Parts: sequence; structure tokens; C-alpha cells
Amino acid sequence: MIAAKVMDSIWSTRKADSLVGLKFVMLEVLGGSDAGRLMIAADTIGAGAGERVIVCTGSSARKMLDREDIPIDAVIVGIIDEDCKF
Amino acid sequence: MIAAKVMDSIWSTRKADSLVGLKFVMLEVLGGSDAGRLMIAADTIGAGAGERVIVCTGSSARKMLDREDIPIDAVIVGIIDEDCKF
Amino acid sequence: MIAAKVMDSIWSTRKADSLVGLKFVMLEVLGGSDAGRLMIAADTIGAGAGERVIVCTGSSARKMLDREDIPIDAVIVGIIDEDCKF
Amino acid sequence: MIAAKVMDSIWSTRKADSLVGLKFVMLEVLGGSDAGRLMIAADTIGAGAGERVIVCTGSSARKMLDREDIPIDAVIVGIIDEDCKF
Amino acid sequence: MIAAKVMDSIWSTRKADSLVGLKFVMLEVLGGSDAGRLMIAADTIGAGAGERVIVCTGSSARKMLDREDIPIDAVIVGIIDEDCKF
Repeated sequence: MIAAKVMDSIWSTRKADSLVGLKFVMLEVLGGSDAGRLMIAADTIGAGAGERVIVCTGSSARKMLDREDIPIDAVIVGIIDEDCKF
Repeated sequence: MIAAKVMDSIWSTRKADSLVGLKFVMLEVLGGSDAGRLMIAADTIGAGAGERVIVCTGSSARKMLDREDIPIDAVIVGIIDEDCKF
Repeated sequence: MIAAKVMDSIWSTRKADSLVGLKFVMLEVLGGSDAGRLMIAADTIGAGAGERVIVCTGSSARKMLDREDIPIDAVIVGIIDEDCKF
Repeated sequence: MIAAKVMDSIWSTRKADSLVGLKFVMLEVLGGSDAGRLMIAADTIGAGAGERVIVCTGSSARKMLDREDIPIDAVIVGIIDEDCKF
Repeated sequence: MIAAKVMDSIWSTRKADSLVGLKFVMLEVLGGSDAGRLMIAADTIGAGAGERVIVCTGSSARKMLDREDIPIDAVIVGIIDEDCKF
């Protein structure tokens, strides 16, 4: 998984029918040589801007949504505790 | 998912039979340390050149097309609203 | 998918039994910040050296070969038309 | 797989129900041009901080946990012997 | 797939039960802008140090081992002929 920081919500009016109702956020990858890379993830946990999150990517992301038919390749699976240092 | 900008259509006369009829576009990854990377995605939503889109990659891309038998690893799943900043 | 240029054939006498008879080519990724990366793909379309191709990667690559049991993660799915600019 | 060094545990109180009880660690990729990249993996082997581990990513990571329904894309599958040089 | 050079064997005494008996090697990615990246792959072909190999990654790697239950994401699928230039 990847550690990332929530930047902002991403709004998309024209999108796949199966994605209607899902919240999307822009994330910035945290720390290390890959820092600063941007990615978009679905968020069903309710992460707020500025929070650090754990992001699961690939086919495993669909497992978070309990739906095998959805075109999603990244999803927030947890919010990193504020006092957790890395 | 990845945020990207639609550059141009990609034309391929000699291609897999299962891809006939699909529209392909060249995309440029937006923002962050991965910016400028190019990728090709299938587009069933009808994104125009210059529009910013959400791209789903990997096995999840096949879910957008409702076809498990198609050799596609990237597809546009949404168009980012024009007034959405990131 | 990725746009790449066919460099050369790759010969491997000692390989997995399931790969016997498949043609492999070395590809160079085209354009953008990822340009110059090398990868090997199976080719069932018959692309020639110097041609620009569309490459599908990951589990979707197996869909091109209609065989679920084959250890292949990249395959040429189309040849980009010569007059297609990007 | 990737060779990485265990940095620290990652704590997440608000996370997917299916992840409760799993231990997560921050890893730093070792050696080569990808060195320094950070990633988070599930650990069921009990690796300690400073140990070098083998990390399996993608859909294969779910095989380590014997659970197909879990949103995990990286897991420690082995601890590299101390006297193993690379 | 990726072209890589076999560096050395990787020894791991504490590892997943399903991996016991498998040989692991450290590989260095060859050529192009991704050169020098290190990765670990399972080897069932018997590649020796210094040999150039074709590596298959992701879910397709499991196909090489005929076992769907194994946490492996990279495997050597062929040895590149010595007189093959690239």
C-alpha cells in the first residue's frame, strides 16, 4: 500500500454509471523517492483534506467496495493515526 | 486512478479483432512528480482533446467495458469538471 | 496502454514450455517522462522493427492470447498508423 | 518481489473492517535505482524494525493471507537471512 | 516482461510455508531509463549468476508455477540467448 496525503475532492459530472455516488479525492504520495506523485482514489471512509491515509491499489482496491464490477484501481483503506510518525 | 489530459486520438488499423470499434486516446499524466508520462487509454465516454480525465488502469479497466476478454489495461472512467482545481 | 517502438526480436532457447512458438520483441517506451524505458512483449500481430505499437500490460495481456495459463504480462495489441502523430 | 527494510509500524484506528487485527509496517525499498521509495505492507511473519524482507505486491499479496476479500496489495512473504549479501 | 541480469541467490529461512523449496534470485533491470532497478524473482528454470533473463511480473507470474495460491509476483520465464543483442 502507499502512504499519501489527501489534497482535495475531485469532481466529475460525466463519469461511468457505476461510479455515481462514490467520493473521489486527489492524493499526494508521501515520503521517499516517490514523494510528490499524484493519484486519485475512491474514499468510503471519509478522509478529510490534510489527513494521511493508506491507499490500496490494483485489483485489491475493488475488494474494499465489495463490488467486482467497478472500474476502480485505488481506494483509501485506512487513515493513519495522527501520532504515528514515519 | 490517474489524472491526465487528453492529447490526441491514436489510430491503429492493424490491431486485435477485439479492439475494433474502440476509440483510443493519448494521455499526458497531470501534476506531481509523475507529470509528463504518456499513456494510451480506451475512451467510451467521449472525452475531447484538452479535457482532464480520470483514468483507471490494470484489470479494473476491463470492468468499464463489461467485457472480460479484452486486452485493455487503461480506460477513461470520468471527465474532471472544468471548475475543479488541483 | 503504452506507446512503444519495436527494437529487435528477443531469442530465448531455454524458456517456459507454454511460451514455445511465441515471438518476443524488445520495445522502447515512446515520448513523455517515461521515454527510453525498455520492455519485452509478446507479438502475435507481426510488428516489424521500427514500427510504433500499442502495448497492453498486466493480466489483460493474457486476454490477447486467449490463454489464461500463460506467464505473459505484456503483449502488442495494435500497430500505430504511420501518419498518426503524437 | 521487492527487497525492502522495515522502518516502523503504521497505526490506523479508522480503517476497513476487514483489516482489523492485521499488522502494517512502513518499508523502504532497498538498493538499485528505486531505492528510498516507501511502501506500506501487511506483516503476518513478524518482521522487526531494521530487518530486510521480501515483499510481494499486487493481487498475489492476497494469496499470503488466504483471503480473497481483503483490500491488501503488499505483504511481507519472507525475511532475508542476515548473512545474505546483495 | 522485463529484461534483467541475475545477480545472486536470495536466502530466506523465515518465509511463507507456500514458498518453501522455491529458489529466489536478485535481479538487476537491464537497459533503458529503468536500468539498475533491483527486483527479486522466483526461478524454476535454473538461471545462473550473470545470465540475462526474461521476467514476468504480476498475476501472470503465478501461471509459471501452476499454482494459484502462491504469493509470488515475479518469475523468470526464459533465459535470453547469449548471442542475442539488445
